[in-house]
Amino acid sequence: MPIRLDSASPDFEQAFVALLGGKRESSQEVGDIVASIIADVRARGDVAVAELTNKFDHAGVTPDTLKFSQDEIDAATARVTPDVMSALQFAHDRIRAHHEKQRPEDHIYTDDLGVTLGTRWTAIDAVGIYVPGGLASYPSSVLMNAVPAKVAGVERIAMVVPTPNGQLASAILAAARIAGVTEIYRIGGAQAIAALAYGTAAIPRVDKVVGPGNAFVATAKRQVFGQVGIDMIAGPSEVLVIADGSANPAWVAADLIAQAEHGAGAQSILVTTEKGLADAVDAEVDRQLSLLPKQTIARQGWDEFGAIITVGSLDEAADLANRIASEHVELALDDPEMILPAIRHAGAIFLGHHTPEAIGDYVGGSNHVLPTARSARFASGLGVLDFMKRTSILRCDPSSLAALREAAVTIAEVEALDGHGRSISIRLNH
Amino acid sequence: MPIRLDSASPDFEQAFVALLGGKRESSQEVGDIVASIIADVRARGDVAVAELTNKFDHAGVTPDTLKFSQDEIDAATARVTPDVMSALQFAHDRIRAHHEKQRPEDHIYTDDLGVTLGTRWTAIDAVGIYVPGGLASYPSSVLMNAVPAKVAGVERIAMVVPTPNGQLASAILAAARIAGVTEIYRIGGAQAIAALAYGTAAIPRVDKVVGPGNAFVATAKRQVFGQVGIDMIAGPSEVLVIADGSANPAWVAADLIAQAEHGAGAQSILVTTEKGLADAVDAEVDRQLSLLPKQTIARQGWDEFGAIITVGSLDEAADLANRIASEHVELALDDPEMILPAIRHAGAIFLGHHTPEAIGDYVGGSNHVLPTARSARFASGLGVLDFMKRTSILRCDPSSLAALREAAVTIAEVEALDGHGRSISIRLNH
Repeated sequence: MPIRLDSASPDFEQAFVALLGGKRESSQEVGDIVASIIADVRARGDVAVAELTNKFDHAGVTPDTLKFSQDEIDAATARVTPDVMSALQFAHDRIRAHHEKQRPEDHIYTDDLGVTLGTRWTAIDAVGIYVPGGLASYPSSVLMNAVPAKVAGVERIAMVVPTPNGQLASAILAAARIAGVTEIYRIGGAQAIAALAYGTAAIPRVDKVVGPGNAFVATAKRQVFGQVGIDMIAGPSEVLVIADGSANPAWVAADLIAQAEHGAGAQSILVTTEKGLADAVDAEVDRQLSLLPKQTIARQGWDEFGAIITVGSLDEAADLANRIASEHVELALDDPEMILPAIRHAGAIFLGHHTPEAIGDYVGGSNHVLPTARSARFASGLGVLDFMKRTSILRCDPSSLAALREAAVTIAEVEALDGHGRSISIRLNH
Repeated sequence: MPIRLDSASPDFEQAFVALLGGKRESSQEVGDIVASIIADVRARGDVAVAELTNKFDHAGVTPDTLKFSQDEIDAATARVTPDVMSALQFAHDRIRAHHEKQRPEDHIYTDDLGVTLGTRWTAIDAVGIYVPGGLASYPSSVLMNAVPAKVAGVERIAMVVPTPNGQLASAILAAARIAGVTEIYRIGGAQAIAALAYGTAAIPRVDKVVGPGNAFVATAKRQVFGQVGIDMIAGPSEVLVIADGSANPAWVAADLIAQAEHGAGAQSILVTTEKGLADAVDAEVDRQLSLLPKQTIARQGWDEFGAIITVGSLDEAADLANRIASEHVELALDDPEMILPAIRHAGAIFLGHHTPEAIGDYVGGSNHVLPTARSARFASGLGVLDFMKRTSILRCDPSSLAALREAAVTIAEVEALDGHGRSISIRLNH
């Protein structure tokens, strides 16, 4: 049974804080193991990568077969049915169209002192995309990671994906081909992150690594941060549904189940102003779960991490939503726009009764790689800007430099950096 | 003596790779110490923060005096001379004016299927700014960190700055007041990062921590990443000057010295097409160093990490610049615009003979917190976007949901997430 809370209850604050602080992941301490794997890959390159891949994934690779050949990718793509291919292409085109609107513009201008300054954006040269293999192997995630990189103008997009026992869903390779991934390696875990960050003979190093993974992958990303850029440390997925009396309990229940079926600590929370809806959704989740072919994971997730919270008003719901800072927020309301400005911390917001979160996972067009574990307080979903960087541009002429001189030299003196002041003065003392 | 390289020499590639890979920081392994400090602060709060502050900084604080009072800030500001105050205000106003142009715009639109989607930007609620104390205590850095946060709309800007032996430059507090910092704590090191990330009774937690620090601070930021956002792991500062025969050797030398006087591994590199200029700059650095009041640090930095590289063409210079991916790149050329597009990886680019890098440190208007240690390959300087986050917005109506249904359900099936498909179908089966 999911936890039931009522914001009017005297012990609500305590129970809500416990819900917020609840750990949904076993935090494995793998720092030392990961550090030794990274050191090994740096020292022995592809030989270490192949050994570790065979040890952890039983993949039967050699340094020469780490990379998928074009023939293998073509063959896998041919095995994907036409309706899946066209669904992936449809998703790709929508994701691409949306992300193209995220391309930033350079802005360089001259101010009233005659100083030219501004911002220029350029693409990162090479990025690595980590794609989990096995159970949670999602072609949609390949698209969501690769398309923004492509739109940004990244030239090399290197994908790594582990192939436990040599197995990999063909749709993963097909999605990579559709998205324009330039190279694919059958490796995973900390060894894949190390290879991408430092490079080997077979795997040229990249400049940034993105994508979710297990505790080894997350720890490896944390350790190589600085050597390469990283996106975020992904946690379990989560949805918060805010509903009033206008919501359909069966639809809300379906959305809570869709989140719970991710397993691995995924959390579904309903916040509602209607006690009647709370009860109806609770019963509906139970009923629909029994119809789901693979109900075990979803039922377990709902029982362990699910929550239904009744509140006195939508304002109160918005306050709780901001404290939860959920990856996904659904506004199952007739007038979602009214409360929208009050929801300040959320990875993505889904408006109205006809926008199930799952539509954003696949074909809405927006990105499904979003901040989890309350990090929507400070982080954003993946986008084109994550694959570009800004360079500042500054240009003075003799007269604008003269106009800036006094203040600059004064601050240089306060900071005891005489050389700084002199580098300005020397240009004006002629 | 700085290293001298010539790109035409047969051993150039090897020597250049060695220069690129050269370590300029002693990498202290402080992970375990930092982890125990963070655990201590989480367990004992302000008592631990005060104890650690007295142990490392000899600051004589108690849990009740961790925070600067308004009186202390006012008194310090009153001690700053009027010309320094007006220089800081001038710098502040220019930094603010430039960063206001970085404010992003929301973009929400409805596409041809009737799907409404887009991006909404909101400010982070609370940020922490780490400001080093002691020797490298720079009021300009207070402005560079706080102003973009203020422009972003951040409501709480909490600054931490260690006060070794209870000492702090008054200009630091004055700059904080000018920039609109909302609270200031006399703490530093890993304990300050822990307090900001997890909160104590006296120091409410923030959502993101920015600012440079020593190995303890950098390691603490790496460890709390995820609990809060962080900016980057800052390394030693660096400048790359690209010059041709039009450059004034004395001016170039002054810029190389300005960088070297930062010490702590700071690196100055000259790349030039003119052997004559290389020789002249080399001699000029020597001459000007002997005129610098505090020449020891600058001379040591120049001797240890400085480099002069002669190349055959400006194209070659641009290629090297991209491999170095320097924090600062100066184009000491008559026509810097010509080569500008070829420099793809740089934190900031300073154009022409009258734009010494130091002008960007203080009053140019652009930010001086820039990616170091080759991270300009994937990272950007600090800006307004670092203090905001994007939320995706998605809205379907019955007809646009129906248009997306088939592809979404098909992908859900491939990913074995039946609940995802059902959450879409259930809305259309009535």
